[in-house]
Amino acid sequence: MTDPLKTLLAAGLPETTVRPVEPHYVEEPRGRWHGRAVAVVAPSTTEEVAAILRACSETRTPVIPFGGGTGLVGGQLAEHGQPPVILSLERMRAVRSFDALAGTMTVEAGAILADIHTRAEEDGLIFPLTLASQGSARIGGLLATNAGGVNVLRYGNARDLCLGIEAVLPDGSVMNTLSGLRKNNMGYDLPHLMIGAEGTLGVITAATLRLFPKPEKTGAALMVVPDPDAALGLFRLAQARVGSGLSAFEIIHRMGLDFLREVGPEVRHPFDDPPEWMCLIDLGLGAGDSPETALEALFAEGFEAGLVSDGLVAQSEAQRAEFWTLRETIPLANRRIGAISSHDISVPVASIPGFVAEAPGRLAEIGDYRINCFGHLGDGNLHYNVFPKPGRSRADHEAERPAIKRCVHDLVRELGGSVSAEHGIGRLKVDDLERYGDPAKLAAMRAIKDALDPLGIMNPGAVLRN
Amino acid sequence: MTDPLKTLLAAGLPETTVRPVEPHYVEEPRGRWHGRAVAVVAPSTTEEVAAILRACSETRTPVIPFGGGTGLVGGQLAEHGQPPVILSLERMRAVRSFDALAGTMTVEAGAILADIHTRAEEDGLIFPLTLASQGSARIGGLLATNAGGVNVLRYGNARDLCLGIEAVLPDGSVMNTLSGLRKNNMGYDLPHLMIGAEGTLGVITAATLRLFPKPEKTGAALMVVPDPDAALGLFRLAQARVGSGLSAFEIIHRMGLDFLREVGPEVRHPFDDPPEWMCLIDLGLGAGDSPETALEALFAEGFEAGLVSDGLVAQSEAQRAEFWTLRETIPLANRRIGAISSHDISVPVASIPGFVAEAPGRLAEIGDYRINCFGHLGDGNLHYNVFPKPGRSRADHEAERPAIKRCVHDLVRELGGSVSAEHGIGRLKVDDLERYGDPAKLAAMRAIKDALDPLGIMNPGAVLRN
Repeated sequence: MTDPLKTLLAAGLPETTVRPVEPHYVEEPRGRWHGRAVAVVAPSTTEEVAAILRACSETRTPVIPFGGGTGLVGGQLAEHGQPPVILSLERMRAVRSFDALAGTMTVEAGAILADIHTRAEEDGLIFPLTLASQGSARIGGLLATNAGGVNVLRYGNARDLCLGIEAVLPDGSVMNTLSGLRKNNMGYDLPHLMIGAEGTLGVITAATLRLFPKPEKTGAALMVVPDPDAALGLFRLAQARVGSGLSAFEIIHRMGLDFLREVGPEVRHPFDDPPEWMCLIDLGLGAGDSPETALEALFAEGFEAGLVSDGLVAQSEAQRAEFWTLRETIPLANRRIGAISSHDISVPVASIPGFVAEAPGRLAEIGDYRINCFGHLGDGNLHYNVFPKPGRSRADHEAERPAIKRCVHDLVRELGGSVSAEHGIGRLKVDDLERYGDPAKLAAMRAIKDALDPLGIMNPGAVLRN
Repeated sequence: MTDPLKTLLAAGLPETTVRPVEPHYVEEPRGRWHGRAVAVVAPSTTEEVAAILRACSETRTPVIPFGGGTGLVGGQLAEHGQPPVILSLERMRAVRSFDALAGTMTVEAGAILADIHTRAEEDGLIFPLTLASQGSARIGGLLATNAGGVNVLRYGNARDLCLGIEAVLPDGSVMNTLSGLRKNNMGYDLPHLMIGAEGTLGVITAATLRLFPKPEKTGAALMVVPDPDAALGLFRLAQARVGSGLSAFEIIHRMGLDFLREVGPEVRHPFDDPPEWMCLIDLGLGAGDSPETALEALFAEGFEAGLVSDGLVAQSEAQRAEFWTLRETIPLANRRIGAISSHDISVPVASIPGFVAEAPGRLAEIGDYRINCFGHLGDGNLHYNVFPKPGRSRADHEAERPAIKRCVHDLVRELGGSVSAEHGIGRLKVDDLERYGDPAKLAAMRAIKDALDPLGIMNPGAVLRN
């Protein structure tokens, strides 16, 4: 037993809090990096979290707050430097309060997103944050990384769905801004500062979330479009016709479907011939409306305008789920193929076609790749992932990765976009933040980090260089 | 000419930038306090703002960023301490860019809210921030104070309507996070930190704002309710029946109508007998909907349930405007009467009736007052203002003010509310923030202030004690 652990236990932390350092605490979904840990501790109360941070301050031990471990930018593990204490929120999963009338729910940070969905739906409400990893992602991590997902178009990012947080600051003090209030101007907005700070300024231990009425009628359609330009035109048309009823507007390139056929998992393919480009459009409407009618009208108008060539409107909730399963399984197929470099980027929505047209030519100057491009067209957010050709492996292209990343990110900057749209900075994009971020903002971030975490124990090396 | 000004002019600032210290720069709307100023400067570019902050840093001169001067908590003027430079954004009013398709608009901080409304409407869009002072309030100040207003229910506060800002930090560096991107996780959310910081961390010089489609059909109704309990019931009913089409739900006590009759301004009174309580309900619906029908159905159902006793549905846009003029003129009447103490508070929506029932009895133990209670019931935000009885003046009750404030704010705290809902802290509520704010949050705020503004030149004494 090492010193930090002794200090922890001496600080009154129950011995059951200490967990074995199992592999999943030091691995990440894409298998790119392996972290280290001096110990894993899983506190069951906010007070225990505070005791852990005090002990880690005392012993100058780094701490990595750990949620579901689903982060894609290495924010939850450290390959280098002093081995950290992994502070897992997995035992703090309670729903502290639920107010159906006010549309709020206060949960502890370890609550799994899918469980939050289920709890909201018990009262006919929804918590709209929806993403592929919702079965294991925990709300603390989702807030720490300001997660996005497929419903941002309508409901906003994780930060927009949070009314207040409880967090333990690096010195062990507990900041409580939990509140169901819609209007509260009591000083600097520290919840928004902690949200998206990726555990570098403290540990989020609980959050008050916004719940919404479940749309009375939901529906979805897959529509085949000739190219991203037409997809953009269809998106504008959908905005004009359906307005705020438009919950999601996804674009999917054929490469994702090819990958699914090549390596699985097995899913039902809606079209016999996989289309080059298609859009997944999801609606949530009022009781008097018919999503099917709205989607059919959208298809007809799009067809007339040459924006759509084929389409399927889901005829049941089961078929709608099938469409979404197809979309949400693509990341799994990506992992099985093994990307050389993955890019979570956003550009102004109008620049999406220009980006998709320009990037492949630039990448071809570096090497011979397959590109899987899919994502949240409505938010201007693409997952633009570069893979080896069949018969070659990620390892064959290892040396090209920096050039690939630089090529994609330079184009994003030219178009006024962001090289981290919804996954955060973690450790993967520290260089990119330095290169593409605003210098005055970076200096201010550093000053804030030093002010709130003067010992530098909170997730060192994530977001800001150590 | 004093030293800071000499330094400013030596720094290359054009002489035309220096304005005479006219009264309106050192007065505030309720006439409670008078500020002082060593100089007023009105830069015309971000670079000039940066030069001013560098010169003020050099000479250790306090700076108060100044927008429309409409703030109600003394954030824009200092009675005590070293006289500041007033940095007025009045000449920076340009619309830098407008993107109707993306629904964004980038404006300089001095743009007046009403002008922003007009510009958005030219393209069939709306910028939904709406409040009584919109003819003079400027967007920089509205963001610095995270202003609220009547449409928060549907569209959120000022911060929710802003996608990015340009700001000059105390050291004169320019932070540019202007962006129309919906998803952007490039490090700590410094825009949200600057928004609501009331000019204590830097000067907002421009902002990218979110625009929304103009609702196709709008409508409004005044409904007479027996008491706040019934108003709450009617609000729930409206939420259930109209959902996201509900743009505003205001509650108005008869005292506001009495004040208007007593001191003006003259407005058209919709009911012959001023009702004890009424609600102003505003809808924005789609092209296929009828707000009149929806409001009439709401009235009928509310009447059936005993929640409403009388009502008027606006039969034209002009009548709807008339209802809103009545609501928005009440603050003017309040000023003519002269409040002893004004309170901008929020409580959980369900606690509004309890608050309104309990507060008068507690205040009666302090003295004999008139109370005007009105505000944004849908957000849980009340303006709860205490006035002298007829024939007496504010000055007669001067000594009671601290006790009144304490009484109201203690009750707010008991109910889990906020003593600053939408007006901010300014200098008026620094004590309240210390008393009612979260201690760990306050300590973190202080650390951030010291880190970003180590010389303490930015609006010293506002938000945090000097």
